[in-house]
Amino acid sequence: MNTINVRIEDKFWEDYSALVRDTVIPYQWQALNDRVEGAEPSYAIRNFRIAAGLEEGEFGGWVFQDSDLYKWLEAVAYTLRSQPDPKLEKIADEAIELIGQAQREDGYVNTYFTIKEPGREWTNLYDEHELYCAGHLIEAAVAYAEATGKRRLLDIACRFADLIDRLFGLDSGQKQGYCGHQEIELALVKLYYATGEQRYLKLSRYFIDQRGSLPSYFEEEWERRGRKGPWSDNKPNLEIYQSHLPVREQTTAVGHSVRAVYMYTAMADLARLTQDNSLKAACERLWDNTTRKQMYITGGVGSTHRGEAFTFDYDLPNDTVYAETCASIGLIFWARRMLQLEAKGEYADIMERALYNNVLGSMSRDGKHFFYVNPLEVWPEANKRNPDKQHVKPVRQAWFGCSCCPPNVARLLSSLNDYIYDVSTEENEIHVHLYIGSHLQFTSADGCDVSLRQRSELPWQGKVEFNVSLNENHAGGTAFALLLRIPNWHQSGQPVLRINGEVQVYDVKDGYAQINRIWNDGDVVEWLIPLETKLIAANPQIRANAGKVAIQRGPLVYCVEEADNGVLLSSLSLTEESSLIEREASDLLGGCIVVEGDARRENTSGWLANELYKPLAAEPKKVRFTAIPYYLWGNREAGEMSVWLRNS
Amino acid sequence: MNTINVRIEDKFWEDYSALVRDTVIPYQWQALNDRVEGAEPSYAIRNFRIAAGLEEGEFGGWVFQDSDLYKWLEAVAYTLRSQPDPKLEKIADEAIELIGQAQREDGYVNTYFTIKEPGREWTNLYDEHELYCAGHLIEAAVAYAEATGKRRLLDIACRFADLIDRLFGLDSGQKQGYCGHQEIELALVKLYYATGEQRYLKLSRYFIDQRGSLPSYFEEEWERRGRKGPWSDNKPNLEIYQSHLPVREQTTAVGHSVRAVYMYTAMADLARLTQDNSLKAACERLWDNTTRKQMYITGGVGSTHRGEAFTFDYDLPNDTVYAETCASIGLIFWARRMLQLEAKGEYADIMERALYNNVLGSMSRDGKHFFYVNPLEVWPEANKRNPDKQHVKPVRQAWFGCSCCPPNVARLLSSLNDYIYDVSTEENEIHVHLYIGSHLQFTSADGCDVSLRQRSELPWQGKVEFNVSLNENHAGGTAFALLLRIPNWHQSGQPVLRINGEVQVYDVKDGYAQINRIWNDGDVVEWLIPLETKLIAANPQIRANAGKVAIQRGPLVYCVEEADNGVLLSSLSLTEESSLIEREASDLLGGCIVVEGDARRENTSGWLANELYKPLAAEPKKVRFTAIPYYLWGNREAGEMSVWLRNS
Repeated sequence: MNTINVRIEDKFWEDYSALVRDTVIPYQWQALNDRVEGAEPSYAIRNFRIAAGLEEGEFGGWVFQDSDLYKWLEAVAYTLRSQPDPKLEKIADEAIELIGQAQREDGYVNTYFTIKEPGREWTNLYDEHELYCAGHLIEAAVAYAEATGKRRLLDIACRFADLIDRLFGLDSGQKQGYCGHQEIELALVKLYYATGEQRYLKLSRYFIDQRGSLPSYFEEEWERRGRKGPWSDNKPNLEIYQSHLPVREQTTAVGHSVRAVYMYTAMADLARLTQDNSLKAACERLWDNTTRKQMYITGGVGSTHRGEAFTFDYDLPNDTVYAETCASIGLIFWARRMLQLEAKGEYADIMERALYNNVLGSMSRDGKHFFYVNPLEVWPEANKRNPDKQHVKPVRQAWFGCSCCPPNVARLLSSLNDYIYDVSTEENEIHVHLYIGSHLQFTSADGCDVSLRQRSELPWQGKVEFNVSLNENHAGGTAFALLLRIPNWHQSGQPVLRINGEVQVYDVKDGYAQINRIWNDGDVVEWLIPLETKLIAANPQIRANAGKVAIQRGPLVYCVEEADNGVLLSSLSLTEESSLIEREASDLLGGCIVVEGDARRENTSGWLANELYKPLAAEPKKVRFTAIPYYLWGNREAGEMSVWLRNS
Repeated sequence: MNTINVRIEDKFWEDYSALVRDTVIPYQWQALNDRVEGAEPSYAIRNFRIAAGLEEGEFGGWVFQDSDLYKWLEAVAYTLRSQPDPKLEKIADEAIELIGQAQREDGYVNTYFTIKEPGREWTNLYDEHELYCAGHLIEAAVAYAEATGKRRLLDIACRFADLIDRLFGLDSGQKQGYCGHQEIELALVKLYYATGEQRYLKLSRYFIDQRGSLPSYFEEEWERRGRKGPWSDNKPNLEIYQSHLPVREQTTAVGHSVRAVYMYTAMADLARLTQDNSLKAACERLWDNTTRKQMYITGGVGSTHRGEAFTFDYDLPNDTVYAETCASIGLIFWARRMLQLEAKGEYADIMERALYNNVLGSMSRDGKHFFYVNPLEVWPEANKRNPDKQHVKPVRQAWFGCSCCPPNVARLLSSLNDYIYDVSTEENEIHVHLYIGSHLQFTSADGCDVSLRQRSELPWQGKVEFNVSLNENHAGGTAFALLLRIPNWHQSGQPVLRINGEVQVYDVKDGYAQINRIWNDGDVVEWLIPLETKLIAANPQIRANAGKVAIQRGPLVYCVEEADNGVLLSSLSLTEESSLIEREASDLLGGCIVVEGDARRENTSGWLANELYKPLAAEPKKVRFTAIPYYLWGNREAGEMSVWLRNS
């Protein structure tokens, strides 16, 4: 199963890829070079220069600071793949040279250990992120080689991977450890694809299989370190790093959410590539638990900032939420792999939900400000003055000391063409997972070169059209199955399928409309998905949302903001669903559809500022409210925001 | 103004004083001696034995561990005052001897510094609680001398206070500091009363006046310590210890809530005793802010466990709440002093609210288990598994490592007779603040010995009766004003006053019904306060309570518990206020009145466990709910609890 030759042609998404190319990547390059005024310095390039012997100085930033450069390079690679840019490629090539200069003779590359703790390499896998950084190096290298054909970074990565392969494993003399922050596992699968080297796949599998075995490597390592750590001398918390059990025995998503979803991504890859059914079953169990018990409606995961972690089923507070941007991106990675493992619409549904809401919402419209935490309820005064909510920011920040999220957004948005289709040559099937205008080229089973152009009016309207073109030699048409995802947007009816103007009956297979036919040049497929504004309730087990509703329209979750509705959003409660109307607001936030409706608003004028409690005498006023797409929140002045609204 | 000779004669409260006398005090003595199985050791007695040279060993517990013994002794004193108990007095006398043996030649007594850091006394007022412990020693000493007539502990306390008086002050050679944890300020006022020594009052005033002056003593001390601290090397957080501004310039309650209310208590004392109007104005401003902007309906204060602190106006989350027991007790201390400063009913209203709800609720019915944190909403699974809520316990604990609260409850409940009346000889006025059955003896302006017996059916019924007896020589009666507080329970009508069976019109003065007359032996006053079950709304600025109501009946706030209403209390919403009924449940939790009513309950059967979100299709069931008084919650199996309920 391969996804090949997809180019995005879609106003909504091209605006984002242009933003990544023209703003995010240049801006992040400035940030990596500590040239963004008012933002915390990154130190990333400087660390490499010091490690390479080109500059004197101390290591700066986090122990995993190298990964920011790698993620940036990966985003650059995807951008170059879509649109060559010799100037940008030159900058990237120079950065790659710098990495090469910082690499040691034996292949090791990590600026933290080279500068700050030489000789202590691999002594603290639990805390120090060496394998994590190696993973991001590998991902960047694979992407850069694919995009540019240049092997320099891939060679650097392979040399490092080869060193790791020699050092880690079950043979005597090898370290039987694994990383405190999963990442290299999924990267090694990519390296296997890029090089065809089985041992990279095996090494990935070793890391996954070894994790959680007894006695715990992390505990033994902690003993060897004299029961000390850089942040805490406590005994390792195995659950927070998903190393409390062998992965096949894990049933619920626990611990640090980014680590978790990165690990599950690798597990799904390995389950497919090694046809490992017990691993597949574990992926499915963990997927169900994550997305059906522990996920915010925006596709965010992680309910607490303490450990940036999952908590437990149905515990989804809106205001003390974590929902880290990287965790949603990792959820998308995982969903993508689950689709490759088995094409089920629910995986794509979640991928779409996380993409359109949590991930898009994490970046400002100017591409220069980012959320690390993506709340569903914001009261700026509380975010400033209640320490339990200070991790939630009411406005996006320029750059973070721990800046994992911005480059992660960039690499996802610039590689989005990899997420739209799956083309299975064996099955002669094309799955359409996402409705993003694009041009797909593939070869069908009988050798016909097919061009499929998708035009999509999402996220605003549910109209999608496909145009089929065949190469000249196939005048008689070519057979393949087209499978169109039926979104779970809770609409009232099924999508209508028309081919060349005629309505078609279709079979549904695992959430996809399946169209088997002989396709001819010029065939037109219309796919009309009912797209309605709906009030969504949460499972009553989610105590935080009791008595509340959210507004969803197609893939977009909505929210109310102070900018449109005044302060004290908690005093609003919705009334009639039938009163909801949609309005095109072409001048608002770059153009969007807002939802308006009737609400009651508590009459605050009946209260003195110095009255806290008094007998109930509710006389709510009737008001109108305006909701905007969640992904656009926080682009005006700082103010209150809420996704869930009381329903009366 | 003095309160004299009050004996409680009231079933409801005598049960509590008996519990304190027969259970809490003996149990806490065991705890102080590390003899409670399964509870964290206190080390308090052991520390004194080591400091006295009677035993070898290390200091155990917190730096302020001594104060637990002092608070216990204070509670013992109040108990002995009400009811002599030679056996208990002997134990107390021996403990006092032990304290005497641990006192140094110069008067210094503090086991932490004597055992662990001799020579480092007074070098870290910010963190180390020396003056705080001295304050509790003084309070215990004053109470013990008053109760038993024995001066031994008072002499110990005076010697220590004299040392402190020499060490601290504005003279050259004196330390110009004050304590990181306010307490000694209010204690020194008591010592002034007990001894008549003006310099104790002056020393208290020095501590209050000096606080918050610039340059900051805490910051200078931190510099002298080499910018280090036992818990954090950070620069002192002046706001958390209310030393960010001179106290007269403080307008909002900030920082650690127990420290705050202890300080405000001393400020109110000093404002009265030194007739300091600017201090009185500061007390009034802080009172308004605390009780009208930052107080839970249960009389709890402190909205976050981070710093055990106030946050800001209207920020009163129910589930991540702090509302420490000691803070409510301190609020009662403060209210008591505000009443002495100016007899206004609102002070007594808050005193009563905090007493009947937060404070009574902090202790289990068996007197052996206590809450430190008093939540208004409990979901036991979240308290276990969401680190943001782990400070909230769904069941009371046996004893705490930091066990400030249990002995504080004991000393308050055993001295409750001091909180009922104020007798002003100058004004010839008797204020009745609390309706607690009791016997008051005083001498009226014309020298008549008056006995006033109060009988009260509170908290269950609003019927109160007073019987006046005069001594034989005053056959012609005696004049005094009786002022009966009009509670702010939000009842529909004013209380009815009958004297000797005849309804009386009365004037209202500052929240009190004022009855000026010549009283005769045998006069009977009936005071009939309408007492209704009411639904209470919160100011809409309190976002946490939007769309919710609480149930209050007289002074008692109610709550719903899982034990009566099943799991998932958030799925309940109240409907008609008119459906509320009261039911005597003589077999429930020792006997109480429960409130029952109609509610809707979300139909959870319409949801699969693995559905998180779907279109709204609410079909609530009609159910009955049962609410119990908040102070009785958590006395059955661990389960959900909520004070605020959705209102539909």
